[in-house]
Amino acid sequence: MFSKPTLILDEAKCRANIKFMVDKAKGLGIAYRPHFKTHQSAEVGQWFRDYGVDKIAVSSVPMAQYFADNGWTDITIAFPYVKQQADVLANLASGVKLQLVVSSAENAEALIGTIFQDVNVLIEIDSGQGRTGFQPYDLEGINEVVANLNASEHINFMGFLTHAGHSYNIPSKEIEALNLETTSRFILLRNQYPNAMLSYGDTPTSIVASEFMGINELRPGNNAFFDMQQASNGICSPQQIAVGLACPVVARYSERNLVAIWGGAVHLSKDFYTDISGNKSFGAICKLQNDGTWSQPIEGLYLESISQEHGMVRASSTSAMEAIKDDDFLVVLPAHSCLTADCMGAYWVKDKGAISTMVQSGKTR
Amino acid sequence: MFSKPTLILDEAKCRANIKFMVDKAKGLGIAYRPHFKTHQSAEVGQWFRDYGVDKIAVSSVPMAQYFADNGWTDITIAFPYVKQQADVLANLASGVKLQLVVSSAENAEALIGTIFQDVNVLIEIDSGQGRTGFQPYDLEGINEVVANLNASEHINFMGFLTHAGHSYNIPSKEIEALNLETTSRFILLRNQYPNAMLSYGDTPTSIVASEFMGINELRPGNNAFFDMQQASNGICSPQQIAVGLACPVVARYSERNLVAIWGGAVHLSKDFYTDISGNKSFGAICKLQNDGTWSQPIEGLYLESISQEHGMVRASSTSAMEAIKDDDFLVVLPAHSCLTADCMGAYWVKDKGAISTMVQSGKTR
Repeated sequence: MFSKPTLILDEAKCRANIKFMVDKAKGLGIAYRPHFKTHQSAEVGQWFRDYGVDKIAVSSVPMAQYFADNGWTDITIAFPYVKQQADVLANLASGVKLQLVVSSAENAEALIGTIFQDVNVLIEIDSGQGRTGFQPYDLEGINEVVANLNASEHINFMGFLTHAGHSYNIPSKEIEALNLETTSRFILLRNQYPNAMLSYGDTPTSIVASEFMGINELRPGNNAFFDMQQASNGICSPQQIAVGLACPVVARYSERNLVAIWGGAVHLSKDFYTDISGNKSFGAICKLQNDGTWSQPIEGLYLESISQEHGMVRASSTSAMEAIKDDDFLVVLPAHSCLTADCMGAYWVKDKGAISTMVQSGKTR
Repeated sequence: MFSKPTLILDEAKCRANIKFMVDKAKGLGIAYRPHFKTHQSAEVGQWFRDYGVDKIAVSSVPMAQYFADNGWTDITIAFPYVKQQADVLANLASGVKLQLVVSSAENAEALIGTIFQDVNVLIEIDSGQGRTGFQPYDLEGINEVVANLNASEHINFMGFLTHAGHSYNIPSKEIEALNLETTSRFILLRNQYPNAMLSYGDTPTSIVASEFMGINELRPGNNAFFDMQQASNGICSPQQIAVGLACPVVARYSERNLVAIWGGAVHLSKDFYTDISGNKSFGAICKLQNDGTWSQPIEGLYLESISQEHGMVRASSTSAMEAIKDDDFLVVLPAHSCLTADCMGAYWVKDKGAISTMVQSGKTR
C-alpha cells in the first residue's frame, strides 16, 4: 500500500476528537477556537467547519495567511506580535477579522508603531508556564499597555489570552487543580476589565477540566490528533490518537531484541515521552492493517531511539519480537503529533489518498 | 534584511570545512565520499564538486534520486535496503553507479529477491554503536550472506560499511581511543576478505583521528556544517559552524532574564546539547551582523527551551540581557545542524539569496 514512511490520518478518529470538543464547549457555553498549528491543513480545517467551527487560532503569520487564503475569516495569531511581519499583517487585516497578541510592553509599542490597519489586540498573560506574557499580578504594567492600545485609533483592545502549557507535563489527575490555579489567576483581570474577552485552553485542561469560571473561549489544538505524550499523561487513550506513521521494517536483530524501521527524526521529530514501563520512548508500536488503520499498541515494544532516518524498536521479550516477525510495516504512534505533522507535510487518508499541509506548499512557514 | 526565521549558510565557512576533509583524506590516501544528508541541497553539492568530490553517500532512496537528478553518478545509500523501494532503485541503478547496503541476513535476502538490475552491495557492520548491521565477530553469518550475494548474477559484493555513531556522545580527547577500537573491529574483516572495500567515518572520528589503518573511504556529513553538539564535544570550534538560524526577537522579560524569539522546534528540531555551564541548550546565541554573518556566541546566553514556534533565550546575568537589548534579530547556532537544515528546507546565502534543498521540492523524502 505504501512504499515509504507515510503519515496516516484516521479521519473517523479525528472527527470524533473534533466533535467531542465542539460538544463540550457548547455544553459549557464557551466559544471554541481550535488551534490549527497541529494539523496545518486546509482540508482538515474543512472537517472542523462541518461541525460549525468558524474561528481559529494559528501560531505564525504565514500560517494565518495560508488559512485566510483557504477561506477562514476570523483568525487569532496566538504568538507575540512580530514587527518584521507588519506588511503581511496589514494586508491580511484588510480581509480578515484578525486578532493579534502583545506579550510585553515593548512588544505592544512595536505593534502600535507599525500597524496602521484596524486590528483586534489581546494581551498575553503568563498563567504559570513561565514562557511569554505579563505576570497577572502586574496590574500596573497591564493597565499602562491597555491605555496605550486604547489611545491608538486602529486598535481595538479585546481582552486577554493565556496558554497554560505546563499542563503538558503532569498526569490527568492533577489537571483539575492546575486548571483551578491558572484560571483563578487569569480571571482576576475581570475585576479590572469586566468586558474583556478571556481566551484560554491548552489540550489537557480543555479535555479534563469541567469548570472554566468566566473564560470566554478555549483554543486547544493537539486534541484533534492527540499523541503518546497526551496518552502517557492519561489525557486520552491510545485508541483516540488519530495519526500514525507507517514505517517499512528493514532489519531484525532477534539476538538483541531490536527491529530497525525506516522512520526517524526527519519524520517524527525528536520529541519523546516516558512510557508506562518508565522507558524514554519516541513512539508506541502498532500493526498496520490492510485498510490503512492500525492495531492497538503492541505490549512490550517501543521506539527506543531514532536518528535522521533510522528508528530502532526495542522488544522487551522474545514474544514481543515474535509478535511482529512477519510485518513489512509498523505504525508508530508519535510522541508529539504536532511536530510529526510538521515534519511530514502531508497525510494519507483512507478513501482520499494524500492531502497536504501548508508546509508542503514550499515550506511557507 | 529578513522578516522571519531564516537559516543562513556561511559559504566561506562551509567551503573551508569541505576543503579540510578533502585535503585530509587526500593526505591519508583515503577516498572521501561525503554524506549529503546534512545539507540535502544540489547547490551545496556543487561546492563539493569544486574541490574534486565525485561520489557521495545519502540516507534514503528519495535522496539518492534527488542527487542523481542533479548529476551525481556514484551514490551509496547508507541505510538498510528498503524492499518497498525496489522499483525506484531499479530505475536508478540503470543510470548511476549505485551501492546498496544490507544490514541483516533477512535484509540481504530481500535485496536478492527484489533487485534484478546490476548493483553494488555493501554489508553493514555494527562497530559498536549498537544500531544496525552484523556483529563483526559473526563471521559465520557474514560469510553466508557474502556467498548468497555472490550467487546472484546482478549483485557485485563490494565490501563492508560501518558507522561509529556512538562517537557523537563523547569528548574529542576520547575519539582516538574509540576510533582505534572501532577500526580494529572493522578491519578484522580484511583477513577473510582481502579485496573488500571498507567504508567508514562519522564526523568526530574523521575530524579527530590521525590513523585509519586499512580503511578505504570516509563518509562524514555533518563536518560540512558542524553544530553545537560537535562544538560542545570539542570536535570543532563554534567559529567553524557554517549555519545559523536568524530569529526575530519578539519580547524581553528583564525581570526574569528571558528573551522570546520566533524560532522553535519546527525550525531547529528538538535536538539539544549540554553547554559549557552544564545547561541543556537548544542552541548558542549570536548577534546578527549587517552583512548576514554572525558574531561569536554571546557569553551568558543560551536557548533554554523551545516549543513549536517559540524560542526562550535565558540570560545568566543582567549584563548578558543588556548585551542584546537593541537586537531585532538573534542568530541561533543549532544543536544539530542536519535536522535544522531538514526542518528549514532552504538556506540564505550571502550574494546568492535563497537556495533550496530537496525537502522544499514537495517534501520528497
